[in-house]
Amino acid sequence: MAARGVHLDHGQRRDWLRLIRTENVGPRAFRGLVNRFGGAAAALEALPALARRGGGLIPPRIPTASEAEAEMEALARLGGRFIAIGEPDYPAPLREIDDAPPLLAVRGLPELLNRPVVGIVGSRDASGAGRTMTARLARGLGEAGWVVASGLARGIDTAAHEASLPTGTIAVIAGGHDKPYPRENQPPLERIAEVGAVLTEMPMGWEPRARDFPRRNRLVSGISLGVVVVEAAERSGSLITARLANEQGRLVFAVPGSPLDPRSGGANGLIKQGASLITSADDILEALAPLLGRSIPSALEEREYDTSAIVDPTENTRSRVLSLLGPTPLPVDDIIIMSGASVSDVQILLLELELAGRLERHPGGTVSML
Amino acid sequence: MAARGVHLDHGQRRDWLRLIRTENVGPRAFRGLVNRFGGAAAALEALPALARRGGGLIPPRIPTASEAEAEMEALARLGGRFIAIGEPDYPAPLREIDDAPPLLAVRGLPELLNRPVVGIVGSRDASGAGRTMTARLARGLGEAGWVVASGLARGIDTAAHEASLPTGTIAVIAGGHDKPYPRENQPPLERIAEVGAVLTEMPMGWEPRARDFPRRNRLVSGISLGVVVVEAAERSGSLITARLANEQGRLVFAVPGSPLDPRSGGANGLIKQGASLITSADDILEALAPLLGRSIPSALEEREYDTSAIVDPTENTRSRVLSLLGPTPLPVDDIIIMSGASVSDVQILLLELELAGRLERHPGGTVSML
Repeated sequence: MAARGVHLDHGQRRDWLRLIRTENVGPRAFRGLVNRFGGAAAALEALPALARRGGGLIPPRIPTASEAEAEMEALARLGGRFIAIGEPDYPAPLREIDDAPPLLAVRGLPELLNRPVVGIVGSRDASGAGRTMTARLARGLGEAGWVVASGLARGIDTAAHEASLPTGTIAVIAGGHDKPYPRENQPPLERIAEVGAVLTEMPMGWEPRARDFPRRNRLVSGISLGVVVVEAAERSGSLITARLANEQGRLVFAVPGSPLDPRSGGANGLIKQGASLITSADDILEALAPLLGRSIPSALEEREYDTSAIVDPTENTRSRVLSLLGPTPLPVDDIIIMSGASVSDVQILLLELELAGRLERHPGGTVSML
Repeated sequence: MAARGVHLDHGQRRDWLRLIRTENVGPRAFRGLVNRFGGAAAALEALPALARRGGGLIPPRIPTASEAEAEMEALARLGGRFIAIGEPDYPAPLREIDDAPPLLAVRGLPELLNRPVVGIVGSRDASGAGRTMTARLARGLGEAGWVVASGLARGIDTAAHEASLPTGTIAVIAGGHDKPYPRENQPPLERIAEVGAVLTEMPMGWEPRARDFPRRNRLVSGISLGVVVVEAAERSGSLITARLANEQGRLVFAVPGSPLDPRSGGANGLIKQGASLITSADDILEALAPLLGRSIPSALEEREYDTSAIVDPTENTRSRVLSLLGPTPLPVDDIIIMSGASVSDVQILLLELELAGRLERHPGGTVSML
């Protein structure tokens, strides 16, 4: 992996950070902008005009260069740095997902990110048996050379991190590096930041809210080739991770439990839905072995584009696309077909609306107007 | 079901009993004989000559008519009677299996045999949770109109019978009706014989040996449309039942448990191999619902045959077939192809060897010489 990919220089990395920290710019809009304008710097320049054309009354707030520098320095003071998608240290499986973060803020040992990773997630209110099982799985995976990723929560997550500390553990957090959650986990976090890795896509200073946890969960599965659910009640966050893992094409494993124990409801339910029942690390290793050594294409690279050939959509095209959009999510593919506009035109028009804060993207490639 | 099938008269039933109680006559040989000679009486007449031709030095021991009458009377004194394959009370799904017993000795309510049946089996050393789960499943199935079958062992079997007593329970035993096993189960057995049904294919007076239990297990699955394994260690009798159920085309369900509990090893292993993970009676009912109301063809009926057209195999054919047989099990189909003999000739020659005690039949349609 080390030989491939690009390296951003300091200025490019700062521009990437400014762009991804810009209001209304998520990973998909970021990719659309960089792909269209050939780089973050050009995208930042084009952004105010795009948002205006999208109907934004107030231009989106773009962090200044010094604000971005300040965030980079704050992360560096914690021993961390930003790794960009396309760079060698960026986790290869994460590049495959649709909404891969363009920048990861990483503390600890970034080399862990490119060893094969298994996610282990489960209930905060884990039973003793659940924690024992978790430790057994994490140790077995670690001894076989796999890194264990989890979410640093109480219960299963903590058991997974602790058991894999000697062999390699990655904590994915939902807030900024200076705002870990829950507070009680501050000591294990610092230990993981020394001998493992801690990563987040959220800005320094970000206090995680409820909606940030599912968003974080997509990264736990995204950096993993498979995800193991140990104990999970029905309707729990671990099941969200399992669903995201499945959508990302990752293998989903579940540890069975007695139907009389509500903490087994989620994992048993996953098995009913097709997840693999596992009872040992060997079961997981056997299923994952064929996935090792796959090469994964890069989703985005900073490079020189010839943007001179790109022509803006006509007013006619713009109004045809706009007339199709409403509060009901509609597949982008359908918008292209129904409008008769080019793929490129539809993409830029949607991007403009997104930057203006008027468009929402949903899973499965659908969009709606806010 | 009540309108179809044949009814044996008293003499026919006695002859069926004599034939199936004859040395070296198992269910497959019984079927071969009745199909070839048109009935049990004619088969009994032909039997000594067949065994002689098969190389038997001592003719197989055939019970006398009065011995058979005595067994029928002994069963009647316990309130039981023999039901023949093809008769309306014979369990319809059992007719489908390859080695269906021609006669079942049944005590209790034979009408239970033709309601839809689910087998529930599991460990003798069941946990409290396992017994609770079993009772919950058995009650749920019973309330939905299903009869529960099991093997009257301690643990899961007993829990299954007890919970389904009010709604319908069938105990399948490995010995004769006067030799229940284990002894401790005498009281539940008598209770089941009053309000449920108890069945066996073994003769009155038969003390069950180790090899009779797997044989019995094929009847538990054979009368059922599906079999549930609740708690089972690896390498347990319940797994034999599950394997037989699978071979018989029955659905196999397993209740998951913690991998830390060795009593869950068997059931978890079954799920890994493709059994359905279930956590409630509803899961089972949902899977079995599509199987209700299938019509099942009868495998064997007592009727008038024109046996005059049947010509015995030539000596040449006999020696060709014999030369192929040895201690290594060989598929009957291969014997037919390799010998160039007719299907009918090969069948009667194998039957002769079987009656002479020189041939053993194995699962999957293979035979070997003893």
